[in-house]
Amino acid sequence: MPQDDKDLTYPGGLTRLFVDKDLSTGTDLPLPEAQTHFLAHVLRAKPGDRVRVFNGRDGEWSAEIAEVAKRTVTLRLEGQTRGQVGVPDLWLLLAPVKKTPLDYIVQKATELGVARIQPVLTRRTIVDRVNSERMTANAVEAAEQSGRLCVPEIAPPITLEKALANWSAGRRVMFCDEAGDAQPAAQALEKAGRAPWAVLTGPEGGFDPAERDMIRALKFTVPVTLGPRIMRADTAALAAIAIWQATLGDWG
Amino acid sequence: MPQDDKDLTYPGGLTRLFVDKDLSTGTDLPLPEAQTHFLAHVLRAKPGDRVRVFNGRDGEWSAEIAEVAKRTVTLRLEGQTRGQVGVPDLWLLLAPVKKTPLDYIVQKATELGVARIQPVLTRRTIVDRVNSERMTANAVEAAEQSGRLCVPEIAPPITLEKALANWSAGRRVMFCDEAGDAQPAAQALEKAGRAPWAVLTGPEGGFDPAERDMIRALKFTVPVTLGPRIMRADTAALAAIAIWQATLGDWG
Repeated sequence: MPQDDKDLTYPGGLTRLFVDKDLSTGTDLPLPEAQTHFLAHVLRAKPGDRVRVFNGRDGEWSAEIAEVAKRTVTLRLEGQTRGQVGVPDLWLLLAPVKKTPLDYIVQKATELGVARIQPVLTRRTIVDRVNSERMTANAVEAAEQSGRLCVPEIAPPITLEKALANWSAGRRVMFCDEAGDAQPAAQALEKAGRAPWAVLTGPEGGFDPAERDMIRALKFTVPVTLGPRIMRADTAALAAIAIWQATLGDWG
Repeated sequence: MPQDDKDLTYPGGLTRLFVDKDLSTGTDLPLPEAQTHFLAHVLRAKPGDRVRVFNGRDGEWSAEIAEVAKRTVTLRLEGQTRGQVGVPDLWLLLAPVKKTPLDYIVQKATELGVARIQPVLTRRTIVDRVNSERMTANAVEAAEQSGRLCVPEIAPPITLEKALANWSAGRRVMFCDEAGDAQPAAQALEKAGRAPWAVLTGPEGGFDPAERDMIRALKFTVPVTLGPRIMRADTAALAAIAIWQATLGDWG
């Protein structure tokens, strides 16, 4: 469906909303409070305006605003605009950091195209509480704005040891190792090849030496270096995802 | 010089300071107000404590705190700990964005290892004022924390047209093109090969179509794609720099 003057846009493009209902032609879709507020008060939507919706299963749909009532904006589904596509099977194993950098990592990792974000508690992890709801909200917003048709899964936090003890051996781990004797990232990935993968970067202050030895001893781990400079945890995570996508993901 | 208990550390590692004086053994280095405050009041430094300093020319030096006076902390240089090394010859042509994402881009681009950041004003650039002092302060802080021995140059803002009209033909431009018919980034870079380079990403909302045609018509431009998702301006810039470093820079 081509863009026209009924389409509600914002500086980043067409307005897209993630919804949890099944999508089919003619369905009426009453929106929850936050989306109602966003459409009615932030974008000042009127009946007849158009948005796009997706639910992670049924592709992207065009929807007309059927009614703007006091407490609920209702959409009417018009037709599918794109068939469902996923993202490459890449996970991010994330040692939680402070609130602002964590918001940022979730937003950027979603835009860069990860399938799942798994918070892992390492020995030097300083942050002891992970706000999964906030992570999910950031992931939804970034999925809406980046044109994704699925929201990355935010898994409940577990210890790194437990995550690796229950690891599926078919999934490789791109381990961003600060110690420096690892292979350059792009070459190591090309050599290891296509498969399900996960990116693992350290917390602020890095991994504990015993933890690092444990990670490197695992068969599915591919230690890589991200060059001679010391990066913050968020920078390293995003750089690793970008290189993975360019080498083995859907940017190629 | 090995790390010992005289070394002033913070969670990210050894305390490093960028200074503008020449560095040689035995020199006394009185520090300006901000660095004095940071050492005396934030880190509570005492005479005999040790930090590292660099000036972008003379490598990295170990320095002992000689005096903590009310208004000035004075360092005494002990010896060189690393010879001078630069970063690859990569510029970032940056369409300015709002304050917070701009702080973030400068910090991350410094960690990822760019040599120069050139703000360029595009037709759709919304931000009309660029705070070069703030950009420089962010670059200095990130250089100190990332172990760099040089701070990226922050150039004064100019229009994109002027920047490209006066371009040195030997410097290639990695043009991150949202339109989608460009080559995948990693492959395009490998094919183009080592040279001085610059990364050019669009402002929020992208390039104007005429501007995009103008950029693509230039001989030194290499249009690349960063995949099927729509990225924010800051995400695209950082992803492009990471891929460049992994492919042609000093991460290989």
